[in-house]
Amino acid sequence: MKIKEKEYQKRRKKLLKSINEGVMLVPSASHQTRSNDTEYPFRQNSNFYYLTGFKEDNAILLLKRTKKSLKSVLFVQSKDRDLELWTGERLGVKAAKKRFNVNKVYDVKQFDNRVKKLLKNSKNVHIDLFNNSSFLKKVQNTCKTLDSDRSVKISPQNFLHVNTKIEKMRLIKSDSEIKTIKEAIRITKIAHENAMKMVHPNQFEYEVQSSIEHTFKSNGAYSDAYTTIVAGGNRANTLHYIKNSHLLKQGDLLLVDAGCEFEMYASDITRTFPVSRKFSKPQKKLYNMILKVQRNIINAIEPGIKRSYLQRMCEEQLCQGLIDLKILKGKKKKLMKSNAHKKYFPHGVGHWMGIDVHDECPYSDEHGKELLFKKGMVLTIEPGIYIDKESKNVPAKYRGIGIRIEDNILVTKRGFKNLSKKIAKTVKEIEQLS
Amino acid sequence: MKIKEKEYQKRRKKLLKSINEGVMLVPSASHQTRSNDTEYPFRQNSNFYYLTGFKEDNAILLLKRTKKSLKSVLFVQSKDRDLELWTGERLGVKAAKKRFNVNKVYDVKQFDNRVKKLLKNSKNVHIDLFNNSSFLKKVQNTCKTLDSDRSVKISPQNFLHVNTKIEKMRLIKSDSEIKTIKEAIRITKIAHENAMKMVHPNQFEYEVQSSIEHTFKSNGAYSDAYTTIVAGGNRANTLHYIKNSHLLKQGDLLLVDAGCEFEMYASDITRTFPVSRKFSKPQKKLYNMILKVQRNIINAIEPGIKRSYLQRMCEEQLCQGLIDLKILKGKKKKLMKSNAHKKYFPHGVGHWMGIDVHDECPYSDEHGKELLFKKGMVLTIEPGIYIDKESKNVPAKYRGIGIRIEDNILVTKRGFKNLSKKIAKTVKEIEQLS
Amino acid sequence: MKIKEKEYQKRRKKLLKSINEGVMLVPSASHQTRSNDTEYPFRQNSNFYYLTGFKEDNAILLLKRTKKSLKSVLFVQSKDRDLELWTGERLGVKAAKKRFNVNKVYDVKQFDNRVKKLLKNSKNVHIDLFNNSSFLKKVQNTCKTLDSDRSVKISPQNFLHVNTKIEKMRLIKSDSEIKTIKEAIRITKIAHENAMKMVHPNQFEYEVQSSIEHTFKSNGAYSDAYTTIVAGGNRANTLHYIKNSHLLKQGDLLLVDAGCEFEMYASDITRTFPVSRKFSKPQKKLYNMILKVQRNIINAIEPGIKRSYLQRMCEEQLCQGLIDLKILKGKKKKLMKSNAHKKYFPHGVGHWMGIDVHDECPYSDEHGKELLFKKGMVLTIEPGIYIDKESKNVPAKYRGIGIRIEDNILVTKRGFKNLSKKIAKTVKEIEQLS
Amino acid sequence: MKIKEKEYQKRRKKLLKSINEGVMLVPSASHQTRSNDTEYPFRQNSNFYYLTGFKEDNAILLLKRTKKSLKSVLFVQSKDRDLELWTGERLGVKAAKKRFNVNKVYDVKQFDNRVKKLLKNSKNVHIDLFNNSSFLKKVQNTCKTLDSDRSVKISPQNFLHVNTKIEKMRLIKSDSEIKTIKEAIRITKIAHENAMKMVHPNQFEYEVQSSIEHTFKSNGAYSDAYTTIVAGGNRANTLHYIKNSHLLKQGDLLLVDAGCEFEMYASDITRTFPVSRKFSKPQKKLYNMILKVQRNIINAIEPGIKRSYLQRMCEEQLCQGLIDLKILKGKKKKLMKSNAHKKYFPHGVGHWMGIDVHDECPYSDEHGKELLFKKGMVLTIEPGIYIDKESKNVPAKYRGIGIRIEDNILVTKRGFKNLSKKIAKTVKEIEQLS
Repeated sequence: MKIKEKEYQKRRKKLLKSINEGVMLVPSASHQTRSNDTEYPFRQNSNFYYLTGFKEDNAILLLKRTKKSLKSVLFVQSKDRDLELWTGERLGVKAAKKRFNVNKVYDVKQFDNRVKKLLKNSKNVHIDLFNNSSFLKKVQNTCKTLDSDRSVKISPQNFLHVNTKIEKMRLIKSDSEIKTIKEAIRITKIAHENAMKMVHPNQFEYEVQSSIEHTFKSNGAYSDAYTTIVAGGNRANTLHYIKNSHLLKQGDLLLVDAGCEFEMYASDITRTFPVSRKFSKPQKKLYNMILKVQRNIINAIEPGIKRSYLQRMCEEQLCQGLIDLKILKGKKKKLMKSNAHKKYFPHGVGHWMGIDVHDECPYSDEHGKELLFKKGMVLTIEPGIYIDKESKNVPAKYRGIGIRIEDNILVTKRGFKNLSKKIAKTVKEIEQLS
Repeated sequence: MKIKEKEYQKRRKKLLKSINEGVMLVPSASHQTRSNDTEYPFRQNSNFYYLTGFKEDNAILLLKRTKKSLKSVLFVQSKDRDLELWTGERLGVKAAKKRFNVNKVYDVKQFDNRVKKLLKNSKNVHIDLFNNSSFLKKVQNTCKTLDSDRSVKISPQNFLHVNTKIEKMRLIKSDSEIKTIKEAIRITKIAHENAMKMVHPNQFEYEVQSSIEHTFKSNGAYSDAYTTIVAGGNRANTLHYIKNSHLLKQGDLLLVDAGCEFEMYASDITRTFPVSRKFSKPQKKLYNMILKVQRNIINAIEPGIKRSYLQRMCEEQLCQGLIDLKILKGKKKKLMKSNAHKKYFPHGVGHWMGIDVHDECPYSDEHGKELLFKKGMVLTIEPGIYIDKESKNVPAKYRGIGIRIEDNILVTKRGFKNLSKKIAKTVKEIEQLS
Repeated sequence: MKIKEKEYQKRRKKLLKSINEGVMLVPSASHQTRSNDTEYPFRQNSNFYYLTGFKEDNAILLLKRTKKSLKSVLFVQSKDRDLELWTGERLGVKAAKKRFNVNKVYDVKQFDNRVKKLLKNSKNVHIDLFNNSSFLKKVQNTCKTLDSDRSVKISPQNFLHVNTKIEKMRLIKSDSEIKTIKEAIRITKIAHENAMKMVHPNQFEYEVQSSIEHTFKSNGAYSDAYTTIVAGGNRANTLHYIKNSHLLKQGDLLLVDAGCEFEMYASDITRTFPVSRKFSKPQKKLYNMILKVQRNIINAIEPGIKRSYLQRMCEEQLCQGLIDLKILKGKKKKLMKSNAHKKYFPHGVGHWMGIDVHDECPYSDEHGKELLFKKGMVLTIEPGIYIDKESKNVPAKYRGIGIRIEDNILVTKRGFKNLSKKIAKTVKEIEQLS
Repeated sequence: MKIKEKEYQKRRKKLLKSINEGVMLVPSASHQTRSNDTEYPFRQNSNFYYLTGFKEDNAILLLKRTKKSLKSVLFVQSKDRDLELWTGERLGVKAAKKRFNVNKVYDVKQFDNRVKKLLKNSKNVHIDLFNNSSFLKKVQNTCKTLDSDRSVKISPQNFLHVNTKIEKMRLIKSDSEIKTIKEAIRITKIAHENAMKMVHPNQFEYEVQSSIEHTFKSNGAYSDAYTTIVAGGNRANTLHYIKNSHLLKQGDLLLVDAGCEFEMYASDITRTFPVSRKFSKPQKKLYNMILKVQRNIINAIEPGIKRSYLQRMCEEQLCQGLIDLKILKGKKKKLMKSNAHKKYFPHGVGHWMGIDVHDECPYSDEHGKELLFKKGMVLTIEPGIYIDKESKNVPAKYRGIGIRIEDNILVTKRGFKNLSKKIAKTVKEIEQLS
């Protein structure tokens, strides 16, 4: 399942060829403090991982393009017996030289000196301008020294935000990336369906969460891809409910938004199902309306269309559905214009997915023109309806219901592939599992 | 089980009385980014929690002592329907006024203005000097403005590190704190003993980890107190092994260092047990030697002794044990002097425990004199022996074995109470569970 | 005239004895960029100079008090032939050891290492909290490292603003300081009286300024103590008019606020005199009113009184004077209450003076109680009246007149000494000079 | 003499057309603290001044280029009676609108809000990357907010160092700039020749300095362009000797490097002349040698040549001169190769000059190719020889002599114009003045 160094090398080369002459710097993530001297589990920086597949902290990738050559340098922690006893094994410089097809591997302690030389004769520095201010400042100070050194003829004059360049590449998934995402979804399927089976009234939401995360980890998915949402009853109407601290009640629906991260790739699945075996009639009606909309949207996916088209489609069809269910009153056109439907569907139709659950690539290109779908893109489709229990104008039977249905879709040459279609989704499939 | 506002109020009052005239500022923790726009689970700042029991972010506690009065002010986020839809429910100013026995509750947006007024006429600012540089800077800038304002007669001139003051209070646990720790240990017991039962060869270490964390969370302990160590065979000799990525093998010992955090209080337990039911002879010999040392140390605990005394005791007895087992050769006195034993026991005998797994209070008072144990302190006792598989000088049968045994001890009026004594620990108890 | 090392040593000792145990750090000033690679003339940090008499940059004074000992350490730039060729001669470590009676002199490059050791075992760091953030941050980072190093029993926990302590000492001038101030005033006298003689209509204000500054520098006063104000006619009503760019006109008064800095000590003198020999009648009336008030205030100075008493006296007498001249109408009590007089006298009666033109010591002690005058204090007395030409309610003859008269006063054992009384001040004295 | 708004407008337009689409931000300089609450004389940022001719602080110029339009916005301080009373008159928004031909003038307090809007839809931000970190950080934070706002389709992704672009424009002087420089040189001529006349033994160097600066200021040149060097005898061998604190002695040469800044344009002239009327024989020999070299270099100046050519020429001819005077022994080729001559001539042949005494433009273009001289460039030519009194290998008669001769040269269509040729320079001219 592991992606091979050859593919990482290909990515670095492609990236190097896409940038202007200059130096690109991508550092690893850093450990984050949880409290006092305890730390959160380390999560590698997504862009660094995309270009190296390397999971250690305190490492830096440097790519350099000149008129004549392309060069790649990796800085890693050197071996250190005493420290490794306390903080775990490191790969070290020697082994890194074997593993990575880069021109040079250096001890990261040499970075300050080496980078000063490598930045000479480069006008452009491609770097993260917005999310790592301490690294940026360090590099800026080096460049400032070069700028005021009259013996250096060419020194960095431009700082270019590297992220968008890499994220654009990340948008199109390779075969091995798709395989990894599929495996993440396979594990997530087990977790969701287990939850459907085991859930029952008088359970705490966190018990369901715990069971899901246990399924993730015991299947080799080290982490969730985002904090699991387990929202019973009216709590589903808080979009980012992550306390998961309440008791589940007979008759409630349970919205579960959970996906594991497998070998650094995300899955992002939402299912909504009854706490006690059966959907009630109004629950079923609302559920089936949303499900139909979701299917329509997914079926519309193919190369050449835009996300905004799906967003519009989603809003229109949900609006019509709400009218049909008498939750909204009036003409669709007018309701749409006044954004009346947004009260019940305030979020987007979906988002890119990959190494990050929300892959960061903008929906428009550098000229502000919206991107067209292409083979290899992966996105989520997640319509939902949220009716707070205090919604006085809505028929009582629908109040306190929140439903979202979310799948992960791959754009293919001719259309799409729903990577998560095997996860129980219809009322029948769900009720059979319970 | 929840600690009551009355107790928090008592803590604030006690703290206020212990400080010089001035203003004390303790902000909540902030959300930490995991990757891109996903965050780690929020963990409240320990000192802020100790003084308020409040779990929200973006809050600040201000205590003020003047010659004539003590004052307490809490800044919290105000209610905001639109934001709460996305980020979860907030308590809000009004409800906070009801819940907290403080003189004033304000919207945190008013902090900059309010604090400027509250800092006037105070020479001393008690604040965290080392771990929250952005908050410190903000307060320093306000103080700078006051310092250069000739109309302000008294303005802050001293910045005093508040942490040590609070951490000294935290050292002595109240009855309700001890109850909470006991509950954390009760849940941790289930997790450890489950692990003993379920472990078997050809399992991955992370499967054991996952099972432990599942036990934690499904029993209401939202989080671990630190990253779980599940180290099979020779990996136990890497002290902070947290990859937990290897297969367990027949005949290996498994070192598990895991403790849940329950209602913000830690437990910290280590057990070492066979992957396949039975200890081998050399494993048993080494294990029993360490166990005996641990018992001796624990039995020595009572008010009036010092941690350095236990450390010395631990090192001497482990050294003697290693001599007895022929792992070390020579006279104890000489071996101790040359620190020969530290090769196999490189860490401390134990540490304070409470809201943090490593409660931060120094082992010495402000004059550098070592603290004497007092009723109400909680600490861990964790002797261990680590023999790397490459240790050429050690009899072959002991190579590749790493064992640690750790319990959580309360200092009582006359002696001690081992809060975790019920967790299977003897060879017999362990083998019966398997 | 130069103050001797013996006196600087005495100051350091006195300061050391006045502080709590701990380490005091006072760095020199840094060079300030004027534009691109040119710099402003270097001006030493006043507190550093007060304690050392040393004029080089990139130096740091460290004083340490423990229970048993007082220690002084000076960090200076080492000799460096190549650099000195470009940036001028340095004293160097060896010569500094001879010149300064301190326990140790080190190369400033060793500061980071040395200070780490020197800060161990000290709870208190006395440092400038508000005006040198880069130095403060450097020291804070060192302290943070010590705080989290468990092998260090006592580490800095308190940061105390050192400035007030030093500035309180600076308040009482020694004999040699008074001599130096007198010399500054002697040179300033020449400059002011030259200006009175040379001024004539159709001159630019900057020509007068230039002549004054030439007198300063060619008499050995390297710099002004503050930017010279040369304000003709209505421009005197802009308190901090420093453009000095207008033509002087027949009939105008010229307000000159100028004082040289001699051997780092300030003088601060204001005189107001006619551009063309003679005061007009209304100018003379207003001038004499203010002069009388100034004399009354100066005569009131003696040990035991407070600055606020002089301020009140000044405001009351100027208010009465304005009533007498029919510039204000109504009863004094009511006018005072409504602050009507502040429109024409918006500033303070005077300020401390010494190494800084505005010596920074607050007017109140640390408990907010106002300071009583003591022998050895030096302050300025500077009443003034400013009537903008647009002041519709004022008799036309007074409009556009701005007058300030400022002298430098020493508090003596029984009363005061006007250090600048020899500078022409009465209408007669001034007109005779012109 | 004043450069007109029309010319500033032309510069802004030209600059706008030379940059890629995006926003350019150039802030004014800030006041610099001298000590405590006194400030150095304010000096406008050179690039800001070049584009506006505006001398106030707390102002920002924003230029924006889109596909369709060019836009210029100026942020200035608004009028504020109370503040202006203390800190001097401001132009204000209304008057600025009249004075500047820009599209919009706003109160600088609105900058944060306005810039956020103006940065939308711009990929490029042209800004000073190295010399104003607080302004850069402020803008970066705004851009970060835009980058993470999904509703903004195009947001800044590139930070481009603006300085080089502006400095390249500044390299070619307009007629009005040349006129201003000529006026600066005219005033500097008076100062230098006055110094030649007035100097005599037993004067302090600072007296000469004071006289020069007095000439500057009383002629309307508000400031020197750099700190004046007045170096008698052996002190001339310290290149940047600015203490000017020694007594001048009979027989010494005096090196004076001084130039005024007139209407923000520099002059930079060095003359070396005898303290007591007559050059000694060895002084004259050395002086004439250098003078001849200087003339040769100046005569070589014309469009199309490079600075490195002049540098080489200068080094070669000075080397030959030193050989001729028997100060260097050996073959020129070998001496040049071993850099033997650099011991006596360690600096450059000259530098660009304009608004800054060292106009900052690099000597190479963005591809590292050396610039060719063009009509309108202004540079200094300043050969010198410095023989320290400790130079054992040099004939005794030359020891302790330091000589530099520096003029300001304009590159013309066919050759050059020595703008400072009228300042006494030959031995004869100098001796006649003394």
